[in-house]
Amino acid sequence: MADQFSYEKLYQFTFNTFIAIGCPEQDATIATEALLSADLRGIDSHGIARLIGYVRLWEVGRVNATPSIKIVHETPSTAVVDGDSGLGLVVAPFAMQVAIDKARQCGTGWVSVRNSNHFGIAGYHAMKALQKDMIGMAMTNASALVAPTFSNERMLGTNPIAVAIPAGEQPPFVADFATTTAANGKLEILQRKEENTPTGWVQDVAGNATTDANILKKGGSLLPLGSDREHSSHKGYALGSIVDIFSAVLSGANYGPWVPPFPAYVPMPENMPGTGIGHFFGAMRIDAFRTPEEFKLHMDNWIGRFRSARPIDENEKVLIPGDPEREYEAERRLNGIPLYPSVVKELNELALKLKISGLMD
Amino acid sequence: MADQFSYEKLYQFTFNTFIAIGCPEQDATIATEALLSADLRGIDSHGIARLIGYVRLWEVGRVNATPSIKIVHETPSTAVVDGDSGLGLVVAPFAMQVAIDKARQCGTGWVSVRNSNHFGIAGYHAMKALQKDMIGMAMTNASALVAPTFSNERMLGTNPIAVAIPAGEQPPFVADFATTTAANGKLEILQRKEENTPTGWVQDVAGNATTDANILKKGGSLLPLGSDREHSSHKGYALGSIVDIFSAVLSGANYGPWVPPFPAYVPMPENMPGTGIGHFFGAMRIDAFRTPEEFKLHMDNWIGRFRSARPIDENEKVLIPGDPEREYEAERRLNGIPLYPSVVKELNELALKLKISGLMD
Repeated sequence: MADQFSYEKLYQFTFNTFIAIGCPEQDATIATEALLSADLRGIDSHGIARLIGYVRLWEVGRVNATPSIKIVHETPSTAVVDGDSGLGLVVAPFAMQVAIDKARQCGTGWVSVRNSNHFGIAGYHAMKALQKDMIGMAMTNASALVAPTFSNERMLGTNPIAVAIPAGEQPPFVADFATTTAANGKLEILQRKEENTPTGWVQDVAGNATTDANILKKGGSLLPLGSDREHSSHKGYALGSIVDIFSAVLSGANYGPWVPPFPAYVPMPENMPGTGIGHFFGAMRIDAFRTPEEFKLHMDNWIGRFRSARPIDENEKVLIPGDPEREYEAERRLNGIPLYPSVVKELNELALKLKISGLMD
Repeated sequence: MADQFSYEKLYQFTFNTFIAIGCPEQDATIATEALLSADLRGIDSHGIARLIGYVRLWEVGRVNATPSIKIVHETPSTAVVDGDSGLGLVVAPFAMQVAIDKARQCGTGWVSVRNSNHFGIAGYHAMKALQKDMIGMAMTNASALVAPTFSNERMLGTNPIAVAIPAGEQPPFVADFATTTAANGKLEILQRKEENTPTGWVQDVAGNATTDANILKKGGSLLPLGSDREHSSHKGYALGSIVDIFSAVLSGANYGPWVPPFPAYVPMPENMPGTGIGHFFGAMRIDAFRTPEEFKLHMDNWIGRFRSARPIDENEKVLIPGDPEREYEAERRLNGIPLYPSVVKELNELALKLKISGLMD
């Protein structure tokens, strides 16, 4: 039921869109690559399906297409970056590059970012470190959909964490996950299929367990990784909180329930304590610890040993973080990226409005 | 049923024990403080109840009471520390101090440690940064009890992560948690009470769900945070793996199923790829990002807002990470620390053997 589009086709479309809203050519290139990495890696909720959301934020003046992104404070191993309300897809690569440059100088680099917007998938930014023989980290806060343990109020975003670690012969270890039991994108898939969620993913407005995949529209909330107190949801809540604090309290962005919403029609929270949304990036040079040769040998050994861990079911082997996304990418570069008809329709309407070529042209 | 002992009484006993096995006085002081911080903070599984385990490791020659702990590699913001088989309770404070010193110099400090032993609770080491207006981090690997998603083989330890963040008027944010659904200490409590576990904590040797609190003795394994694939156990598995890699692959310690076991009678794994167990520490100066005054104001705001998040049940308010442990500490400093009769008996036998005063003397 989904049509397939080549990466190049979607690339041209997305690039044209960013140019149409006034992004400089270089920024449009950077943003397009960052955004479409989600579609390539199978994280469909964060890719081109969100493009129209970014355009709407620009329309209401919440995204600045020509930001002056600046380092506002720094030490040899740290920086705070102000994104000047730019696309997170442009601000994040700038900040990650600062982290990498700092690491080159003094072993590691750590950058907290304020006044930004959504940055696509965290894994893309973390992986930038790999080609430099560094470990990369990326996290971001997001508008509140998640209730802390014991609460029925939305206080945290799905606040993902990504960690990318180079290996030798083996592909890199790339973890990239929301700090909730289920990411919002998984709910969207169930909504489309008109199916219920498993237990432990969401709760209703009063805090009761539910399997209604549409519960977020009725005041419900996502649950932190762990689902309930008995299964240590306080750990997921702590992880999401750490992401929030590193991304926003360190930088001067908004945090907790004050993070600006992604949908442009949702009113901004009152009494916001900072500017925009916040991210946090890290880069650690491998040779700041041991030689990359030794490290990669042991990473290959680590990965090989975990791949051969005794499986419960012979047909379902143990995976290394990043395996599923890498398989998606190989397949989609070859066969194209599937888009739902509703997404294609929206994008073609957007093309008409922006006077750019549509997906079928 | 448990007897209460004053902190001072347990301090003297523990200090005497470390002196009796040959620790220099300064190291005995450091180790005693680190170990007993667990008893003060209510994490009974990691405190004085483990003292006899440390002594047994010394008896079989796996703990060196007079280690020469060294920085073996460094950059301005990083170091690798070799613990020379010392007590983790002594090696970890050394390494955390290196991280703090590095942070003082260039904003942040990151230290990976090899050739160490168990270091008590991660939170104690992370909290060392607080008094310096720094964020502290501590993690460690441990012997394998946890099966990755899709496996029934024990491949990872409970690999805890601690993050301590200073606040102003509010007490600090201190998260300290195993990357499993349930820590091993929780199983021990249920074993003592002869009760079953909730579902989702453990699996049997074949990988089937079970609620048998004694299943680890029968080849079963703990489950990563998330419990099963449907509830994102792959995220807990990824977190535990990141701790393992930062602690051991970066430093040259043992990792995965090769981490040395805590019980001295369990044979060492074959073909070990490193030395001892590994830890990882971090310190980030707040003023490497923004003024501590501003940061603390916003942390107070963050904490205050989360405390007042709408509770599901009026009698169960939202907690901030570190709240339960702080309450334990206040109460136990006042009223003493409860020890099970079996622990008291073991410690008194140890006292006889080491020719030091017993707990009742």
